[in-house]
Amino acid sequence: MLTMQDALLALTKYWTDRGCMIVQPFNTEVGAGTLNPATILRVLGPEPWRVAYVEPSVRPDDARYGENPNRLQTHTQFQVILKPDPGDPQEQYLASLEALGIDIHAHDIRFVEDNWANPATGSWGLGWEVWLDGLEITQFTYFQQAGGMSLDPVSVEITYGVERIIMALQGVSHFKDIQYAPGITYGEAFGQAEYEMSRFYLDDADVETQKRLFEDYANEARRMLDARLPVPAHLHVLKCSHTFNVLDSRGAVSTTERAKAFARMRGLAREVSTLWAERREELGHPLGLSSLPAAATAPASFAEVTEPAPLLFEIGTEELPPHEVTRSAAAVREAVASKLAATRLDHGDVVAHATPRRIVVLVENVAPREPDAERFVRGPRASAAFDASGEPTKAAQGFARGQKIDPSALERVEQDGVEYVGVTKTDHGRGVLEVLSGLLGEVVGELRADKNMRWNDRKLSFTRPVRWLVALLGDQVVPVTASSLTAGRETRVHRTAAEPVVPVATASGYLDFLADHGIVASVTVRRDRIVLAARDLAATVDGTIDEQGESGLIDEITNLVEDPNAILGGFSETYLELPQEILTTVMRKHQRYLPVRTTSGDLLPHFVAVANGSCDQDAVRAGNEAVLRARYEDASFFWRADLKVAPETMKAGLARLAFEEKLGSMADRAARIAAVAGDLGAALSTADRSTLDRAAALAKFDLASQMVIELTSLAGVMAREYAARSGEPRAVAEALFDMERPRSSSDRPPATVPGAVLALADRFDMLVGLFAVGAAPTGSSDPFGLRRAAAGVIAILRAHPALSDITLERGLAAAAVHVRAQGIEVRDLGDVEEFVVRRYEQQLLDAGHDHRHVAAVLPLAGAPASAESTLREIEQRVGDAEFAALVAALQRVRRIVPADTTASYDPAKLTEPAEVALHQELVTASDAMAAPALADFVLAATPLTGPINTFFDDILVMAEDSDVRAARLGLLATIRDLAAPVLDWQALGTSFAAE
Amino acid sequence: MLTMQDALLALTKYWTDRGCMIVQPFNTEVGAGTLNPATILRVLGPEPWRVAYVEPSVRPDDARYGENPNRLQTHTQFQVILKPDPGDPQEQYLASLEALGIDIHAHDIRFVEDNWANPATGSWGLGWEVWLDGLEITQFTYFQQAGGMSLDPVSVEITYGVERIIMALQGVSHFKDIQYAPGITYGEAFGQAEYEMSRFYLDDADVETQKRLFEDYANEARRMLDARLPVPAHLHVLKCSHTFNVLDSRGAVSTTERAKAFARMRGLAREVSTLWAERREELGHPLGLSSLPAAATAPASFAEVTEPAPLLFEIGTEELPPHEVTRSAAAVREAVASKLAATRLDHGDVVAHATPRRIVVLVENVAPREPDAERFVRGPRASAAFDASGEPTKAAQGFARGQKIDPSALERVEQDGVEYVGVTKTDHGRGVLEVLSGLLGEVVGELRADKNMRWNDRKLSFTRPVRWLVALLGDQVVPVTASSLTAGRETRVHRTAAEPVVPVATASGYLDFLADHGIVASVTVRRDRIVLAARDLAATVDGTIDEQGESGLIDEITNLVEDPNAILGGFSETYLELPQEILTTVMRKHQRYLPVRTTSGDLLPHFVAVANGSCDQDAVRAGNEAVLRARYEDASFFWRADLKVAPETMKAGLARLAFEEKLGSMADRAARIAAVAGDLGAALSTADRSTLDRAAALAKFDLASQMVIELTSLAGVMAREYAARSGEPRAVAEALFDMERPRSSSDRPPATVPGAVLALADRFDMLVGLFAVGAAPTGSSDPFGLRRAAAGVIAILRAHPALSDITLERGLAAAAVHVRAQGIEVRDLGDVEEFVVRRYEQQLLDAGHDHRHVAAVLPLAGAPASAESTLREIEQRVGDAEFAALVAALQRVRRIVPADTTASYDPAKLTEPAEVALHQELVTASDAMAAPALADFVLAATPLTGPINTFFDDILVMAEDSDVRAARLGLLATIRDLAAPVLDWQALGTSFAAE
Repeated sequence: MLTMQDALLALTKYWTDRGCMIVQPFNTEVGAGTLNPATILRVLGPEPWRVAYVEPSVRPDDARYGENPNRLQTHTQFQVILKPDPGDPQEQYLASLEALGIDIHAHDIRFVEDNWANPATGSWGLGWEVWLDGLEITQFTYFQQAGGMSLDPVSVEITYGVERIIMALQGVSHFKDIQYAPGITYGEAFGQAEYEMSRFYLDDADVETQKRLFEDYANEARRMLDARLPVPAHLHVLKCSHTFNVLDSRGAVSTTERAKAFARMRGLAREVSTLWAERREELGHPLGLSSLPAAATAPASFAEVTEPAPLLFEIGTEELPPHEVTRSAAAVREAVASKLAATRLDHGDVVAHATPRRIVVLVENVAPREPDAERFVRGPRASAAFDASGEPTKAAQGFARGQKIDPSALERVEQDGVEYVGVTKTDHGRGVLEVLSGLLGEVVGELRADKNMRWNDRKLSFTRPVRWLVALLGDQVVPVTASSLTAGRETRVHRTAAEPVVPVATASGYLDFLADHGIVASVTVRRDRIVLAARDLAATVDGTIDEQGESGLIDEITNLVEDPNAILGGFSETYLELPQEILTTVMRKHQRYLPVRTTSGDLLPHFVAVANGSCDQDAVRAGNEAVLRARYEDASFFWRADLKVAPETMKAGLARLAFEEKLGSMADRAARIAAVAGDLGAALSTADRSTLDRAAALAKFDLASQMVIELTSLAGVMAREYAARSGEPRAVAEALFDMERPRSSSDRPPATVPGAVLALADRFDMLVGLFAVGAAPTGSSDPFGLRRAAAGVIAILRAHPALSDITLERGLAAAAVHVRAQGIEVRDLGDVEEFVVRRYEQQLLDAGHDHRHVAAVLPLAGAPASAESTLREIEQRVGDAEFAALVAALQRVRRIVPADTTASYDPAKLTEPAEVALHQELVTASDAMAAPALADFVLAATPLTGPINTFFDDILVMAEDSDVRAARLGLLATIRDLAAPVLDWQALGTSFAAE
Repeated sequence: MLTMQDALLALTKYWTDRGCMIVQPFNTEVGAGTLNPATILRVLGPEPWRVAYVEPSVRPDDARYGENPNRLQTHTQFQVILKPDPGDPQEQYLASLEALGIDIHAHDIRFVEDNWANPATGSWGLGWEVWLDGLEITQFTYFQQAGGMSLDPVSVEITYGVERIIMALQGVSHFKDIQYAPGITYGEAFGQAEYEMSRFYLDDADVETQKRLFEDYANEARRMLDARLPVPAHLHVLKCSHTFNVLDSRGAVSTTERAKAFARMRGLAREVSTLWAERREELGHPLGLSSLPAAATAPASFAEVTEPAPLLFEIGTEELPPHEVTRSAAAVREAVASKLAATRLDHGDVVAHATPRRIVVLVENVAPREPDAERFVRGPRASAAFDASGEPTKAAQGFARGQKIDPSALERVEQDGVEYVGVTKTDHGRGVLEVLSGLLGEVVGELRADKNMRWNDRKLSFTRPVRWLVALLGDQVVPVTASSLTAGRETRVHRTAAEPVVPVATASGYLDFLADHGIVASVTVRRDRIVLAARDLAATVDGTIDEQGESGLIDEITNLVEDPNAILGGFSETYLELPQEILTTVMRKHQRYLPVRTTSGDLLPHFVAVANGSCDQDAVRAGNEAVLRARYEDASFFWRADLKVAPETMKAGLARLAFEEKLGSMADRAARIAAVAGDLGAALSTADRSTLDRAAALAKFDLASQMVIELTSLAGVMAREYAARSGEPRAVAEALFDMERPRSSSDRPPATVPGAVLALADRFDMLVGLFAVGAAPTGSSDPFGLRRAAAGVIAILRAHPALSDITLERGLAAAAVHVRAQGIEVRDLGDVEEFVVRRYEQQLLDAGHDHRHVAAVLPLAGAPASAESTLREIEQRVGDAEFAALVAALQRVRRIVPADTTASYDPAKLTEPAEVALHQELVTASDAMAAPALADFVLAATPLTGPINTFFDDILVMAEDSDVRAARLGLLATIRDLAAPVLDWQALGTSFAAE
């Protein structure tokens, strides 16, 4: 059996044999091997660096007293840095797994998109988590930026999670059972430390002391920066960071404090990086400069082609992110097609396919050359080209000289009725190889994705490295170069194939060629295969796959493999006692497994995993089942632990969860929410009211559950489950579930009224509280998610017109009462309202509403349900001439009347027929008007349109007699004010004018 | 070439193959691998533990900006713990050197006594530093106590100094040049960190911050102990300790603070250990219990021996400390001889020899058995044994029954004039093997040395482990057992021999047998060989060895080897520019090399090293030369650096050296010394005074030199050198040298008067200052060396009678003025004076003076020179009858006169001849007396003896006439007071009475 220490030695040996230096773990606590200066500082600057080391990584948050089978406060990373990227890091990595005794042919090893960012140090990279039969065993990253500095060259960072790998290899299900060394288990060696350090991190570290340490470390880092000493500065940033983590695991960091601490650490880390880079430069880069592959030599000449032939162009990449696979295929097809269109080369259809590792473009019947083309080069006007004697003028002579022809050869051509002299020239068509060489090279150079990265190429940039190009016209190589790459006829098939690199004889039948090598290039074919296989496998256990519901997941899976190999796995039925949301969340998000259900939608204890390529199905199934079991074991652990705690008891735990420095704990916040909900729900029905009261008393209790601490996305879901199981009424459980909705812009708002009221109270409290303590979002920074909260308020109010008595104003005011009760000064609620309204405006605009219509209803945003119906009304009246006339009339009224005119007049002063008529019509309309809803208003006010227009036609408002003038203005002002609450008529602008 | 990372891997591999678990370096700064919990905690308790790991060890004090070739703030230890002792750890260790590619046959590898203690954790062990050709490459310790707890079983701790080993193997002379990994040197990999961390530790760490951190860590450790969590408690003790080291390297720890901090850390560390041990017990010792070798089976019967034969008894040990070699030989010889004497076994001479690895006892002609012996067992008195009728009484019957004889067999014997009955019994002699078996077993069991230790034996205890026993009588094995050991005929020769274990055929000619195996058992033979070889080697470079002066060193060398192999090495003449004290100190103390000098005593650039056994002389020479070169390079580095700094400038550095919290910096102290010296030197000659003033201005400046910071024993030596070289007058330089003398009880006092005054001022200031701040010595604790200072004062004053105006009282008073000037309250100087006087008394007693004579002169101790001459006078007068009579007379006077009698009388009242005569003689004596020196006094006072005696014979002092009585008493009191200043006559007691 490979012990854990054997594994560490094997990796050490493997990477030293590949030129890595071995260093020791860092001698202060680090959260990850990345933070060891051997990575985070050495990746900066131009010097080469190859290093490997073990890093016991300390994560106080993961402390579990040694009880959780998979979670440790200190786990062991094996870290490798290859700088610059050696060009084949994935292959080197796979060989390292073989060095560990892993049969990479039997297992399903995959590179699954996982990008890495460490905001605390201003660092990020793109890469993957590596899966061994569904188990994440390694983080593989192309390090792009560190400490806020772009890396040139980029480094490859490989981080092995050693405990996980060993648990899988040894087939043990608790870390304590790992055979660490001969005769001694992990638990025996480290169990006591695991328990005791957990105690320290979770229960016993002194918060005041740790806060002081944080300050001291930060200050010492600051001083070291000022002394231009990046090494001790970095050391103290690490100490700072660890101390922050300790405080965090003690539950002693509020969201504001967190943001502040992060900003401070990030600032320091960035300065450390900059300083380190500067110092290395001052030292003359003692390790020399990295060398990257030279640019490929562009072809100097091109062979002749005589017959039309099919073109194959393959861009070989490392595993693309799933959403980039389809997108890139389309983009490359489009690029090739449009560039071809800009040539005179004849060709057939351009089609593209893509897998995670290749984008394949196929073009039928590409002509051997461009045809020649003639074009007329225009010179001076004929009238100015010859003098009176018919001799060429200086202008004509100059033009001819420029064109290298004799003036006598000038032709005459009439263009747009004017006669010019000029010359007809022939553009000779280029050979197909020349055309394609340039064009395809450009396609590669112009590849771009949502997020792009660099690797060991000086110029190229894409979502993942481009490693090879195949360009064949028929059986002939098209001499394409792109930066350091040169196209050839060799493609790469599965890395574990006997021959991973194979020559392609001809462009024809390339899809078949790939299929022969076990690669399904077509996305649709792959998808169909997956669906079919999954359906068949599910059927073997009398189950189905929700093809509709899992459509997005199936798309993703399709682009995670080149050769889908669906495998049915199972899990113990005992886990079905867990809420299905938990089980499916884990399957989908963490594992990309398709859940298997009965026809009635109940979950079966099975799943479909889709491996890539051929493998030992039993081994892969067993591996995937073990991974899921471990994850479910985790979840069950929390579930069982949580079920032992009554909601009220659990809720007491909120006091230990910090929310915000001034706003107090999560318990304080829950209490405020309950109070606000009580105020807002005054008008609820008795049943709803009683549900609301009970739910408010329990509000947010599940945040203190282990499950939600672990899987925060289950907040609300767990509240519903735990509440229901503890005997709360169903309605209360639903309200608790509802109050967390909507979680995102695509989530549904609360379905129940009590839930909606709680959800509103939650968000009003958040907005008012955080604005009051100065934590309003700035720029892209919105640590508390206030934009989401504002959008939520709107969504809830829009979804619950019955709650129209809860206006923004009232909600915010109610929240303010309870925030003030906490001793916090709340000044201007106008700012908060404005902030919410702006979110609403944005929501409406994003939904595609006319900006003028949106502007017209914004004054109603305080009650979004009514703004909403008004907007619908407006849009229904688009094309309604009568309404358009009314709008125009009302706008006209408003334009004429000075803003300070009062809406009152003496009808006796009105004598002209047009003004009398308007007055009478207005009285009728006023009487008819029930509510300021647009439909009602239109009904009542439309009769005013004619009289208004007549009034303006016939009457001079500014009469010389001031009483008359006042009466006329008062009349109009009354109309204005009657219309004002309905919407902002001026804002409609001319949107109805064209009608 | 073996790179450093290869070496670490090779050691890792080697020790895992021997069952060690590999752990990672600790993730907080530790000063040594010992402090990693994998050692310091795991050595506690009964559980077995075998571990190996790399430990980058951080020692802020060793920071040198990366400039010193051999000193680093972080060096790499490779640490091995074998628990329990496997019985052959030295052999396992040597094989590990072979695994590193070291040819242990070619090199001189030795185990040189070096005991280890870490007061900060209450830990200690006995063992060696391992030398590779004179280079210390490993610390090898039998760990005896940790955290104040005795270890059972003990652990073997092996700590490799990896950089040193690699530098030797790679033949590089600066750590930066070590090939760390292929293509990268140590300097390239770690040079910048070395520089920057040096900056932090030496210059830039913020002292206030670090002090706060120290408190915070200590408090957190305290809390964790209270929570019964030894692991996080230990972590915080380590953080505490590192922070202390940082403060220390920043020069921010005064001696009092140091003592306080150490006490605190020690206290915490001890609690951690106790708690850990308790917790492991509570956990049921998860790793099981260690097993040690069982006790050997004692022989049940013994063979018969018929002829006398020689006895060989060899106790085989691991390398004994040199001073224990000779001592142990004598002790074992004595034990064998006295135990033999207690038997009836005939035998010849008992002789013993010893080498570092064996104690050999040889006894000639041991008889085959003890003769039988008769003895009379006494019963009751004859008078009580038989009744009137001659029948045995009950008493006689009882006795006879007890002796199992018939009462008729009772014999009669007269003893001390009384007749007893009794019986003669025969004690049958035991066979020689039975006698020796018991006796020799006891000898082993009773082995003891100054410091004793345990190893893997349950009972034995000695200065180093006893590993084998040879016991042969002629050619026959004597069946001796001692705890787990059984004697046999196999001895061990050199560990690197082809056959390291060889059978011994017979006891005869054992020394020759050993000689055949290259082992010189006789200490004197070894010593002679060394002296001869060294002399011959020195002669080859026209040099000599100072056999007299180096006698102690030669003794030590003799006991460091079993087979002396003297090698002449050389060093670059350029180092001769260094003061010879530096060169010889390094040679002797660090390397045990014999300096080679010209006949006129000047140092030559050569040395004699004495290797053990056969080796590759060239390799060993080269190795030793490299070691010395490195050490001299260090010294030269400091020397050159120091020479660039003028003494005044250097002196400014004293402000950064803390002395004591309240007493300020070393600069404060130097200023006080100068001031006190000025006061005390008021009466000096003009020349001396000017020397004193200048020297006082520079006092202690060399403490701020790099050389003295490194080699504190050179304080004063360097002052003289640096002062002279910077152009100070020779006398000033000498005074600066002198002021540090005497350094120890065997050192000479200052030779010059200005030096003596400075030395006194130094010590007076120290005594007064530290007593004033409450730092007087208590028990065995004397952190500032005040006992030495007091002894120094006495020694100086004794050596400088010309400074008789400087009394203890005056000196202390002068010092008090300047201590007070620093704002410190100085109360009772009487305590300080008493303290000094007690040291003086002890000195005199230790020197063998009669305690009564010492007591007699102690009142003069305030001026030791005069006490000294008085004591000499007294001792010269031992046997002087006249003086004895004077003493008796004076003592008689003092006995008679009440203490409160005044020394005045009216001569007119004296009328009796005896009193008149005494009066007249007293007048003459008083007039004749020049000074209260004893010789003068005796000369003047001897004539009083007769009259005093006559006075007492003839006169009744207590006359009835009170005037007469007063006059008589006054007369005697006058004599008393005349004698009083000379010495304490009563204290002489009867020391002269026998005369």
